[in-house]
Amino acid sequence: MATPSKAIVSRGPFSEGKWAIEPVTLRELKEDEVLVEIIASGICHTDLHCGNTPDDKGVPAVFYPRVLGHEGSGYVKAAGSAVTSVQEGDAVLLSFSYCGECHVCQTGPPSHCTKFFEINFMGEPVFSPASGSSESTPTIGGRFFGQSSFGGHTIVSSKCVVNVSSLALSREELRLLAPLGCGLQTGAGTVINVAKAGPEDSIAIIGLGGVGLAAVMAAKNAGCKRIIGLDRLSSRLDTARELGATDVVDTSDKSTEELVSAVKEASDGGLGATIVIDTSAYPPLVSAAVQFTRYLAQIIQVGTGMPEAYLNLHMQSFMVSGKKYYGAVQGHSRTSQYIPELIRWWREGKFPVEKLVKFFDFEDFAGAIRGMGDGSVVKPVLVWR
Amino acid sequence: MATPSKAIVSRGPFSEGKWAIEPVTLRELKEDEVLVEIIASGICHTDLHCGNTPDDKGVPAVFYPRVLGHEGSGYVKAAGSAVTSVQEGDAVLLSFSYCGECHVCQTGPPSHCTKFFEINFMGEPVFSPASGSSESTPTIGGRFFGQSSFGGHTIVSSKCVVNVSSLALSREELRLLAPLGCGLQTGAGTVINVAKAGPEDSIAIIGLGGVGLAAVMAAKNAGCKRIIGLDRLSSRLDTARELGATDVVDTSDKSTEELVSAVKEASDGGLGATIVIDTSAYPPLVSAAVQFTRYLAQIIQVGTGMPEAYLNLHMQSFMVSGKKYYGAVQGHSRTSQYIPELIRWWREGKFPVEKLVKFFDFEDFAGAIRGMGDGSVVKPVLVWR
Repeated sequence: MATPSKAIVSRGPFSEGKWAIEPVTLRELKEDEVLVEIIASGICHTDLHCGNTPDDKGVPAVFYPRVLGHEGSGYVKAAGSAVTSVQEGDAVLLSFSYCGECHVCQTGPPSHCTKFFEINFMGEPVFSPASGSSESTPTIGGRFFGQSSFGGHTIVSSKCVVNVSSLALSREELRLLAPLGCGLQTGAGTVINVAKAGPEDSIAIIGLGGVGLAAVMAAKNAGCKRIIGLDRLSSRLDTARELGATDVVDTSDKSTEELVSAVKEASDGGLGATIVIDTSAYPPLVSAAVQFTRYLAQIIQVGTGMPEAYLNLHMQSFMVSGKKYYGAVQGHSRTSQYIPELIRWWREGKFPVEKLVKFFDFEDFAGAIRGMGDGSVVKPVLVWR
Repeated sequence: MATPSKAIVSRGPFSEGKWAIEPVTLRELKEDEVLVEIIASGICHTDLHCGNTPDDKGVPAVFYPRVLGHEGSGYVKAAGSAVTSVQEGDAVLLSFSYCGECHVCQTGPPSHCTKFFEINFMGEPVFSPASGSSESTPTIGGRFFGQSSFGGHTIVSSKCVVNVSSLALSREELRLLAPLGCGLQTGAGTVINVAKAGPEDSIAIIGLGGVGLAAVMAAKNAGCKRIIGLDRLSSRLDTARELGATDVVDTSDKSTEELVSAVKEASDGGLGATIVIDTSAYPPLVSAAVQFTRYLAQIIQVGTGMPEAYLNLHMQSFMVSGKKYYGAVQGHSRTSQYIPELIRWWREGKFPVEKLVKFFDFEDFAGAIRGMGDGSVVKPVLVWR
């Protein structure tokens, strides 16, 4: 029962015009997989990392052809025999996948699964060109983040699936909430689940894209005393203020010293931030964060650094300060519990996803990506139906 | 009421023969200070950092003349008018000092006091040469770590004082327990209060001096699954085994790769350590620790790095791993509660300080320091009376 559909197939870098909507055929469903009719999918910078890099540079996780997309929402069309969490017709949001067996999955947040890279960035072939025989081995990569949601239909790992049927979301709502499964849970979850921010905290958020702005909203909900947003785009600073930032710092026109002073001044009269959520992974900014935090602060790296990015810490002063530096993936979200919590926030008006999202017809994926690239759109969502 | 006594006065680096026992006069007691008759004092590497470095190199906290020593025990001779925690005759152990007013002291462990350096490393003048007028301004530095315990009597900050009178320790016991206030609480406290180690943990301890061996004992008491001691001296590895290490790794004959493999093999069949207590602050060893730990591990720096020591972290892989890197001072000890807890452990036979300590008459301070330097003595304790 190979399924015919269409998908955005990346046959090379986006910037070389090598993404196109193609008719495809999906392979048979395995017992732990789910066939999902996609209604919407957010676009994230990780899609472009993997889909806008030439594949002859040896960059890990860059290969073609494949179907990207990892912030999908839709309805279950069929579930494999071993799947118990959903059945046909259920409304679902899609998130990352994990092995479920490693030492982290056994005890800790599965977003730090030791096989996260292979499972989410490499995936496995799922799609074939529609012109090929339905019997043939699939040749187009799927299961990006377990899902490859840039298609009208896709086959996903059951671990990606969050059943939201009981929440009675309309189709329009399900479209809007598509990005919860990656960027938005990452920002919010890092504030709530990882940093465990509270009213005594002065939190600095570096980079105000979807992740950073979700962190701003979560910090407001956590009652943080000061919420300091840093970005180089003034439109993003405005949005951050609208969503709850008490202070904003324009990084485009400041030296490191000025930036450090600005954040310190904004946090309890010079003491410095207690928490930093860094979405930039840009070493000079993270080094500045080490300076603009107070003793015992948490400096949490959420953005994925470039392969050549290193942070150089002065051991003596860092030790004495008691500051912690660490990374957190996907806000330590246990998706089947946490995504419904975010939806409750949204329903209460405390997580206004609509202020970040702009919808694009899936045929205009190029316009969506351009909007993300020039900063005019925070979170583009492709609508399939 | 200036008090006459004698003290080890450091008038230059120890290695230049510039430490000597001199008659001294102590200045008047201030209202928040305590006059203590010292019966014993441990020697710690920090005494040598400050007392064996020429003072013309611009190294912070190096100046002469001064009285060092910061692991003292003794009896209260007099207490200032504002002191409520002790009275004359009380048995006391001495620990570090802190301001009590900064944002850390208000809410967090006072060992990360933002004025820790000034208060503990700089101190203030307390002693005068006995030949001088008792009216004169003191010219010899005291209150090192609030105490300067290398003297027959000393004036200490009331914040240093842990009243152990209710524990009915004999004079011999009080001598033996002198080092609790710095090195031993640092090792034990880091395992218990900071890392919160438990039975599921595989803990690696780098450097098996007093701090590291105290960490081994604490890890045993915490029931850690594996306790892996690393040092370059085989005698220290033997002591670690005797105190509870399940595995030891000789760092003197191994490449980084071999060292990483050895620790990994010792911890849950290759998974790597969950906790590292690093007393070395030696960047290649800490970098190795980043490699020999499993995902979500805590890498806790306890040793104070040389001014030129930096740790270079690969941001992408460190972020994905969820490992935490941070420093902890004095095991986050709240001394008036934690030191009595350590004494209870010791009484129950679970913290055998006597296996680390060697006593020296105070006149043989040079022999004590040589024993520490050549590795034959873990924790020398100078006995004053």
